[in-house]
Amino acid sequence: MILFHNDYSEGCHEKVLTALVKTNMEQTPGYSEDNYCAQAAEKIRKCCGREDLAVHFLVGGTQANLTVIAAGLRPHQGVLGADSAHVNVHETGAIEATGHKVLWLPSVNGKIEAKQVSDYMAAHWADPSFEHTVQPGMVYISSPTEWGTLYSRPELEELSRVCRENGLYLFLDGARMGYGLMAQDNDVTLADLANLCDVFYIGGTKVGALFGEAVVISNPALAKDFRYVMKQRGGMLAKGRLLGVQFDALFEDDLYFKVSAHADAMAEKLRDTFSRLGYSFFMPPQTNQLFPILPAKVREYLGQTYTFIEMDQIDADNRVCRFCTSWATKEENVDALCRDLEIITERS
Amino acid sequence: MILFHNDYSEGCHEKVLTALVKTNMEQTPGYSEDNYCAQAAEKIRKCCGREDLAVHFLVGGTQANLTVIAAGLRPHQGVLGADSAHVNVHETGAIEATGHKVLWLPSVNGKIEAKQVSDYMAAHWADPSFEHTVQPGMVYISSPTEWGTLYSRPELEELSRVCRENGLYLFLDGARMGYGLMAQDNDVTLADLANLCDVFYIGGTKVGALFGEAVVISNPALAKDFRYVMKQRGGMLAKGRLLGVQFDALFEDDLYFKVSAHADAMAEKLRDTFSRLGYSFFMPPQTNQLFPILPAKVREYLGQTYTFIEMDQIDADNRVCRFCTSWATKEENVDALCRDLEIITERS
Amino acid sequence: MILFHNDYSEGCHEKVLTALVKTNMEQTPGYSEDNYCAQAAEKIRKCCGREDLAVHFLVGGTQANLTVIAAGLRPHQGVLGADSAHVNVHETGAIEATGHKVLWLPSVNGKIEAKQVSDYMAAHWADPSFEHTVQPGMVYISSPTEWGTLYSRPELEELSRVCRENGLYLFLDGARMGYGLMAQDNDVTLADLANLCDVFYIGGTKVGALFGEAVVISNPALAKDFRYVMKQRGGMLAKGRLLGVQFDALFEDDLYFKVSAHADAMAEKLRDTFSRLGYSFFMPPQTNQLFPILPAKVREYLGQTYTFIEMDQIDADNRVCRFCTSWATKEENVDALCRDLEIITERS
Amino acid sequence: MILFHNDYSEGCHEKVLTALVKTNMEQTPGYSEDNYCAQAAEKIRKCCGREDLAVHFLVGGTQANLTVIAAGLRPHQGVLGADSAHVNVHETGAIEATGHKVLWLPSVNGKIEAKQVSDYMAAHWADPSFEHTVQPGMVYISSPTEWGTLYSRPELEELSRVCRENGLYLFLDGARMGYGLMAQDNDVTLADLANLCDVFYIGGTKVGALFGEAVVISNPALAKDFRYVMKQRGGMLAKGRLLGVQFDALFEDDLYFKVSAHADAMAEKLRDTFSRLGYSFFMPPQTNQLFPILPAKVREYLGQTYTFIEMDQIDADNRVCRFCTSWATKEENVDALCRDLEIITERS
Repeated sequence: MILFHNDYSEGCHEKVLTALVKTNMEQTPGYSEDNYCAQAAEKIRKCCGREDLAVHFLVGGTQANLTVIAAGLRPHQGVLGADSAHVNVHETGAIEATGHKVLWLPSVNGKIEAKQVSDYMAAHWADPSFEHTVQPGMVYISSPTEWGTLYSRPELEELSRVCRENGLYLFLDGARMGYGLMAQDNDVTLADLANLCDVFYIGGTKVGALFGEAVVISNPALAKDFRYVMKQRGGMLAKGRLLGVQFDALFEDDLYFKVSAHADAMAEKLRDTFSRLGYSFFMPPQTNQLFPILPAKVREYLGQTYTFIEMDQIDADNRVCRFCTSWATKEENVDALCRDLEIITERS
Repeated sequence: MILFHNDYSEGCHEKVLTALVKTNMEQTPGYSEDNYCAQAAEKIRKCCGREDLAVHFLVGGTQANLTVIAAGLRPHQGVLGADSAHVNVHETGAIEATGHKVLWLPSVNGKIEAKQVSDYMAAHWADPSFEHTVQPGMVYISSPTEWGTLYSRPELEELSRVCRENGLYLFLDGARMGYGLMAQDNDVTLADLANLCDVFYIGGTKVGALFGEAVVISNPALAKDFRYVMKQRGGMLAKGRLLGVQFDALFEDDLYFKVSAHADAMAEKLRDTFSRLGYSFFMPPQTNQLFPILPAKVREYLGQTYTFIEMDQIDADNRVCRFCTSWATKEENVDALCRDLEIITERS
Repeated sequence: MILFHNDYSEGCHEKVLTALVKTNMEQTPGYSEDNYCAQAAEKIRKCCGREDLAVHFLVGGTQANLTVIAAGLRPHQGVLGADSAHVNVHETGAIEATGHKVLWLPSVNGKIEAKQVSDYMAAHWADPSFEHTVQPGMVYISSPTEWGTLYSRPELEELSRVCRENGLYLFLDGARMGYGLMAQDNDVTLADLANLCDVFYIGGTKVGALFGEAVVISNPALAKDFRYVMKQRGGMLAKGRLLGVQFDALFEDDLYFKVSAHADAMAEKLRDTFSRLGYSFFMPPQTNQLFPILPAKVREYLGQTYTFIEMDQIDADNRVCRFCTSWATKEENVDALCRDLEIITERS
Repeated sequence: MILFHNDYSEGCHEKVLTALVKTNMEQTPGYSEDNYCAQAAEKIRKCCGREDLAVHFLVGGTQANLTVIAAGLRPHQGVLGADSAHVNVHETGAIEATGHKVLWLPSVNGKIEAKQVSDYMAAHWADPSFEHTVQPGMVYISSPTEWGTLYSRPELEELSRVCRENGLYLFLDGARMGYGLMAQDNDVTLADLANLCDVFYIGGTKVGALFGEAVVISNPALAKDFRYVMKQRGGMLAKGRLLGVQFDALFEDDLYFKVSAHADAMAEKLRDTFSRLGYSFFMPPQTNQLFPILPAKVREYLGQTYTFIEMDQIDADNRVCRFCTSWATKEENVDALCRDLEIITERS
């Protein structure tokens, strides 16, 4: 079988692996207090165009989400996000386990709008029983979203403005950051994110690393004592240099951006084929995750050779499917998939 | 102003007060290990027709909810309830602060159905990523609900059956228990609740006591070590006998039921007047909380003399309002309100 | 039996009871937003000599402790206290249940010293692995302590200075506040406490009220949003006016101080008798709790008529015992106890 | 500098690295649902001589500790351990952050005895206020301990018996498991541990892996739903196969035991040199961590070439030091260290 059902089926990019192999027997201090972490953080700060950013490395996304949110909220506060937010639906209540409610807003294409946030805050303060309800303390968004869509710069600017006006942290989950930054539709840079968000992370697990997320904090109040919280939540890796070495390699010669561009190119090829053959998408196909709507025959035929996720039923025949490309996707596999798609489409 | 906006504006029924006064200078052991608590618990067990029930006294509703839910769930579990459930919307995230997510279901008239629960469980187990989502461990319902409506015995039987089939605790919040038990539509007894639920509580705060809720636990697994959890969550009252004395008085000569019946009779009088005058209700008027839909003129006129809560706007002119009666409601006040309602209705 | 084993065996002072009875059928807003709470808070602010204090009413001590500590700490912080601190030993891990470690220091006479705190902080920052340990964020002391002893003003001034230098909140648990303020040895006023502590509470449960603690917050950072946290932890009493009415009565005509002085006078009488008859004390007898060391014969004899707590064995014959007086202690009972003590002492 | 200050300064054993490299571009399912994890678990079950064990892979020690403890305890329960336990002192309150108190016992050589546990439990139940204190629910030990010492089989048997008699889970932290199993003094096997403990883990991070701990659960009550808790606490690695591949390699051809034996042999060589030259040890030198007591001159001289940790001052001149060997320690470095030790000793 050829796997298209997610973007973390392989290990890591060969240059990352080479770096790990090469440094394997070096002796370094533990807990990310080594030079590789320092160097990787420095490269990330450069990419973000700011020297005052705190950069911390965590192993995975749920860990990053729960650590950032726990670090940022007072006990009576909750985090506002989309109904489809990863923290709301796919982390086994990790946020609630830190004591905080996830407050959700209905989303369109996996995104929420600044106005929803300001309306929510206005309604909170207008409620005579506001002290009987959870006070929002942070807004959580992902970009690319769980549905593969992107926030535009104007959207982020509005969210950022509303958050600042309302005393809310703005936290952007960038588990698939690279695939967003290199997407055709994208108009956002890392420097924009550093200026617009209080905290965001640059996903490695899904973008060329074995594992790892680089948390970038621009708000000093949130940065204070962050390493304590990392340790407390089990996120302080003993051999932290493994994260430093990987991100150091990923941010050398724009590797992170190049591997992301590859995944996006593969997704675009696939997207164009789906479109050309007349299939529609459940969500705008902007990054490495595509959600075409496919009839049973097509699903059955493709399912013999390729893995993908079958999601909601649209009607008797059609169902939303998820196909992912990644840094590791081989063009020959995408070509084969496109060919098979043509074959079964013609037959139907 | 005459207060109809809630059912906890006064202190307690005079017989409860008399009991508190009479026992005031008695010396008793602390922490509900006194005879009054024992006696009150015994009376409640009698009313429930079972000798094997654990009965514990807590000061308030949010405290009871968070203590029961924390005691019953394992860390990865959540509690299923209606979207309108008090634990979901009006407890400042008290449940999440114990580490557990409130999982909600859309409600009709403030109620959820057994089928919603069994469907939710089926979907949970059918999800290949079920371990990435919160596992339901308990169902929370309130009866009377936050909207003043009632679960019928068949509805509770179905819920109970589905909960047992799915390994879920069934927890009934009875903050307004008495007003449910004495309602015209009611077909449920305390004995039914003891048999159908794993745990429920008999509200005192809103039904004749100064404060206090009697938690009744029929499931031994949940009863085990419950007092530890009470103490840990700040719910073990030093002078616990205050709770015992009050419930002892409330369950003497059916006082609890009589004062509840009074509140229901007052609500029925008011309900009949609203109906007769052509006003409709946003929710079926079954207990001591009424939610008539009233035009602006009526609201303004009544608002000069009476307090009530103005809720959602239905259309340009009409708005849902909440009126509560209670054990303390004076019939003369209800009569006055009915008269004023007639006056303003005729005028309009 | 005549009870001397604790100071919460009775209900409340008659003037408090009278106030509750008198106001019983008044209609007031809920959740401490009534005039009685406002009035009581105002009286307490006057006693503290500061208009800028936030005053909140909670039902009990464990609830007050866990609410204040949860409100004040960031997740990686803990609270420093004496090994014998109530929060460390007698609250079923209530503080840990809010996510925070209780860090304890060895105590002398139930007290810790400023130098212990500054040494602890110095050691924390000197530890190269400090991020792997809990960061103190608050100091918790009780005065009177769990052992009935008192902090002097110079001791509190030193603690306050050290806390401010180290960015720590200073929190004083005053569950038995009145018995401290009126003790012969005392040199501290409520105004001193308001200036030296960030937060403290004035205990009502053990000092004349049915229940209730008045939390006084002088640090605005801690005061912010405190009512949300109260609600979340189950500490927002629906009929909050019950707390207001009681504290209003206690702070009318110095009632709180008078009833406290009575308890202290009773304790002094008892203390003098123990001393005169040659018994020593395990702890300096400063307030309403006495810890004489008594031989078996004396314990047996007294145990026929009076309750008291038998604690640690000192040697084969002698054991530490706890006797408490309170606002409710009758002088005739103290006299009887003193007489019986003389009788058995002479006999031995 | 040559690093002896800890046992996680390098990456991983070359065979582990080779396995990672070799499998790097394979496509596997995520979240440890791949064949490598299955295979590694199977090998571990074989080593433990039991087919009914649940084996789960986590990234690090603090994560393993907090996940196991959170999964096993009810809210009012705490975990009993040594004062020197890692969970008590070096995890930034990770256990308290899950809501549970760490209850500690004084230790000798980093170990606690069965009798301490049974005495603690007897005292708990004998306390009339037991519900006001934290109920032990689990015993946590580490072997090798934080002080490099070992529990003997009779000691573990006694602990296991006492735990079972008292309804306590027995949890053994084996972060340095291999160095214990291959130590000269050791009389315990993995099979013993599987039978005596309810749960333990086999440390990889410090014993040849890049990272990873294999949690082995023999008690079905604790095994139930363990993966949910892993996910909730951020411990479910997306590319879980990385853990499987590593443990699969470590349990191939006894690699785990061989690399451990090497570290122990290096420690023994060092230990014998210290002893021969007349230095005493602060703790019995049983595994890969040695705690010799060294005078200032020796520390200064060695400190020019080697890293080690300087700990408590014993007297004006002498201080406890920590030296670690590991799977990666080169014999030539140990020899050099021994030579330098002789040189400085002779000079002094």
